Amino acid sequence: MSFDHSKLRWNGWGLAAHKDAVAADEAVWNWLAERLGMPSLLATPARPLEEIALPVPRLSEQDRAALTAIVGAERILEDDYARAYHARGKSYHDLLHLRAGDLSCAPDAVVCPRGGEEVGAILRFADAQGIAVVPYGGGSSVVGGVTAEKGPLRAVISLDLSGLDRLIDIDPVSQTATLEAGISGPALEKALAAKGMTLGHYPQSFEFSTLGGWISHRGAGQASSRYGRAEDWLVSVKLATPRGLLATEDFPASAAGPRLTDLVVGAEGQFGIVTEATVRVHPVPAVRDYRGFLFHDFAGGAAAIREAVQAELPVAMLRLSDAGETGFYRTFSGLGKRKGLKDWIEGRVLSMRGFDANMAAMIVGLEGDAGTVAYARQHVEAIAKRLGAMPLGTGAGKRWLAGRFHGPYLRDPLLERGVGVDTLETATSWSKLDGLYAAVKTALETSIADTAPRPGARGIVMCHISHSYRDGASLYFTHIFPRTLDGEITQWQAIKKAAGDAVAANGGTISHHHGVGEDHLPWIAAEKGALGVEVLRAIKDTLDPKGILNPGKLIPR
Amino acid sequence: MSFDHSKLRWNGWGLAAHKDAVAADEAVWNWLAERLGMPSLLATPARPLEEIALPVPRLSEQDRAALTAIVGAERILEDDYARAYHARGKSYHDLLHLRAGDLSCAPDAVVCPRGGEEVGAILRFADAQGIAVVPYGGGSSVVGGVTAEKGPLRAVISLDLSGLDRLIDIDPVSQTATLEAGISGPALEKALAAKGMTLGHYPQSFEFSTLGGWISHRGAGQASSRYGRAEDWLVSVKLATPRGLLATEDFPASAAGPRLTDLVVGAEGQFGIVTEATVRVHPVPAVRDYRGFLFHDFAGGAAAIREAVQAELPVAMLRLSDAGETGFYRTFSGLGKRKGLKDWIEGRVLSMRGFDANMAAMIVGLEGDAGTVAYARQHVEAIAKRLGAMPLGTGAGKRWLAGRFHGPYLRDPLLERGVGVDTLETATSWSKLDGLYAAVKTALETSIADTAPRPGARGIVMCHISHSYRDGASLYFTHIFPRTLDGEITQWQAIKKAAGDAVAANGGTISHHHGVGEDHLPWIAAEKGALGVEVLRAIKDTLDPKGILNPGKLIPR
Repeated sequence: MSFDHSKLRWNGWGLAAHKDAVAADEAVWNWLAERLGMPSLLATPARPLEEIALPVPRLSEQDRAALTAIVGAERILEDDYARAYHARGKSYHDLLHLRAGDLSCAPDAVVCPRGGEEVGAILRFADAQGIAVVPYGGGSSVVGGVTAEKGPLRAVISLDLSGLDRLIDIDPVSQTATLEAGISGPALEKALAAKGMTLGHYPQSFEFSTLGGWISHRGAGQASSRYGRAEDWLVSVKLATPRGLLATEDFPASAAGPRLTDLVVGAEGQFGIVTEATVRVHPVPAVRDYRGFLFHDFAGGAAAIREAVQAELPVAMLRLSDAGETGFYRTFSGLGKRKGLKDWIEGRVLSMRGFDANMAAMIVGLEGDAGTVAYARQHVEAIAKRLGAMPLGTGAGKRWLAGRFHGPYLRDPLLERGVGVDTLETATSWSKLDGLYAAVKTALETSIADTAPRPGARGIVMCHISHSYRDGASLYFTHIFPRTLDGEITQWQAIKKAAGDAVAANGGTISHHHGVGEDHLPWIAAEKGALGVEVLRAIKDTLDPKGILNPGKLIPR
Repeated sequence: MSFDHSKLRWNGWGLAAHKDAVAADEAVWNWLAERLGMPSLLATPARPLEEIALPVPRLSEQDRAALTAIVGAERILEDDYARAYHARGKSYHDLLHLRAGDLSCAPDAVVCPRGGEEVGAILRFADAQGIAVVPYGGGSSVVGGVTAEKGPLRAVISLDLSGLDRLIDIDPVSQTATLEAGISGPALEKALAAKGMTLGHYPQSFEFSTLGGWISHRGAGQASSRYGRAEDWLVSVKLATPRGLLATEDFPASAAGPRLTDLVVGAEGQFGIVTEATVRVHPVPAVRDYRGFLFHDFAGGAAAIREAVQAELPVAMLRLSDAGETGFYRTFSGLGKRKGLKDWIEGRVLSMRGFDANMAAMIVGLEGDAGTVAYARQHVEAIAKRLGAMPLGTGAGKRWLAGRFHGPYLRDPLLERGVGVDTLETATSWSKLDGLYAAVKTALETSIADTAPRPGARGIVMCHISHSYRDGASLYFTHIFPRTLDGEITQWQAIKKAAGDAVAANGGTISHHHGVGEDHLPWIAAEKGALGVEVLRAIKDTLDPKGILNPGKLIPR
């Protein structure tokens, strides 16, 4: 199994044993209260699982017997912890429900197959019996992608795929690998590293997500400029559907009609369950060079990114924080530490060089052989210098790498103190990027103020460019706000709607790499068009005629 | 209009005025007869159009009136030349039919809309009236992609899209351009060049094909290593369908479900007609450096290509001829010329350096800014040198560039002398490439010998790697053979079946960049799988419920 759920948080992020120093540091909370316009930030603990009554499981004895015949009794979990763990993913919205003790959508059972054939057999059973099946990899969805909805069916099982965790084959000549889809990020990279290879797909959820999840939500890792998005590195899949196995094309390229593999990337389990995937891998890079640059403002940094990607420099990552994010992390990391001579000098140097509150920090990631990295570095540095940036050296890069998966952990201590934090991401063309940035920022700030628990309370809205392309880039927003404790869900819905509408009205996609799930469903009809939605429905009706797969996600009904 | 059909060959390739020196050179024909094991190559002229009776047009006066109301009478062509021109594409199989005077599938009329709205109106009319519509751009399909089949419907019109030829918009910041889809290769590049940009999509059919055709058959230009395949450079399309307009997503990247644009790439007009497309463009490259290398054998050249692409060097093209193709063009280009001292020296140098009949020529194409080209050239040269290749300099590259669109013109003089020539292309992973190459070569040689017009007659089978990827490459076969004049179609079918079966049995795709059309239909069910074909049918049934669009292509029924 890819994960030991007993060591992970069922209603929060990651390892239960993880401790954040910030949680116990009252200086942080005092500062944050002031920034949020709140008199104080009181404790808002989550309801413990022991206090929560789960719905009565709806599987019959016959259902259990049929499932037992497929996977064995020990791989059918019906205990409260397993059901609570698999009730939802890890979005802010999910955590509000879970922390409040709402387990109304706990699955009737969690079933843990060992391989593709068992998955196929389970789907045949569920299809025949009219039972919903929610594919569950790492469960790290932040868009409501794995909520155990039963839809109009009589019961729902969460299909935990983390037992499908083997490296099946590696082809070093073609630089491809075939793996079972439930393998976790760390297990996948470990298996590939033993052969000198890497997939290089490092989303922030890397430690707690799976290959199949990356494919199914059409994800992008932090270093996707080098390693590609899921749709770039994916060669083929085996898709278990209620109507049987669909093995997609297995070629480097083809003109033999539309590529079925492309239908599976981003399908969020609507058409079938990815049990196996062949992916393009790289030799483990000889050099990994991450370093920081400080630009005078966001526009200057964005111009540098655009120039670098349009020159097609072989970079792995170009990540630019706006002034808000640059300032936030600078202040946040200094909280509770005594200011010393070094800080004073740093402040003076920045000021003398003309850096003010508008300054924007960039992390440039380069990976590959020594020659390629040197070539890219020389060109990126030249662009940055010409645009007035100050190099921050590899220290900033190393700090970023060390904390690259840490972000989601910050949410739990904030939730414990009445503070909400959510993220959203979008992408658009370069020519629409400024407008989209301004509109979403304003929508978030306004909706947060409008839904705040008291007059004068406000949010912190910050943003970075996380991924870039020749024709555009993604914007990743993080917003921190004081929760309206007697209407948390309503508050979230209002903020989400304002932001999503601003995205749609300004040429952005409703998601660049998180996916659609339940949370982005309201914007899909406009984004895909009425006919486009009909096409998606037609594909689903062909492969999943009874609609047992992951009800309520992706495709508007 | 993108093309003046009156100056083009209705039953052959390209410009009617084009003359090949080879046609009148008896030395060529004597040499070729010997190579093919034939006593002589007699004249086999095509039937002139004046002698051919076309089927009686099936459109009614009401049909004509309705179409006239949409496009005007002058844009409805019913003369023999227009109908003959639009009867078929330009495959070897097509030319056999056309040259023999078989115009049984001439369309009932050719309709020439001026824009997307007229296309939509025509589709509404045709859908209501049950008339088949065959989208026709440049008509250069070599897989039976534009045969004017009426299927089970009462009539068929060929929809000539070459009037949709405008550059609509260019976004220099995002490096994208929006164009009408009927624009020809030369017109597209001219319009973009005026803005300092290029799409860089140069298939061999470049002069006589259109943007919409490149998208619809999922094509790849010769320099696709730099500029990408259609699915890489395509951002979005407007697709006119019998059920209305489908405008696909217009983002640099998105995780909002499967990408509808991907469904259109390679759909061969089955789901709708591409009227407009937004594409990723590049600045016109400052440097274009094409040069030759001679490898001791095909395997050595293939190893060099694999190393270069897996090192992700920024190359535009790596094209490697096998020994057969290298020898053929060396001999062919020398035919009729007196051998001089230069040839003798060349032969001696090659021999002294250990090059024999196994030698394999490679053309390396580099495009971009001076720094990128220099960087790539240095690395490619190092790889080639290490693998024992001899540089042939830029002369070989210039000669290749000068003749890059010339190949298809050679077919017509061969057809005039009883000789058949066909091509096929496929792709597979690097680890399967040797096996695929050997199997297809053997299948072609054997089936040609088996279907030859006399005992001892044989074919010339040659191959090159035309496109390469980190995980594999394409193989492009050309085969020249003496025609069995009393059974040309049967002979073609037997050779095609043998080659296609060998492709499928050895891990190749039935097409890497030509498409499926009618010719590759027999292999699609195996390649896509039964469920995959059902998915394609479901999409078609949703967007084209009466099946009026391009009957008989791509999707097995």
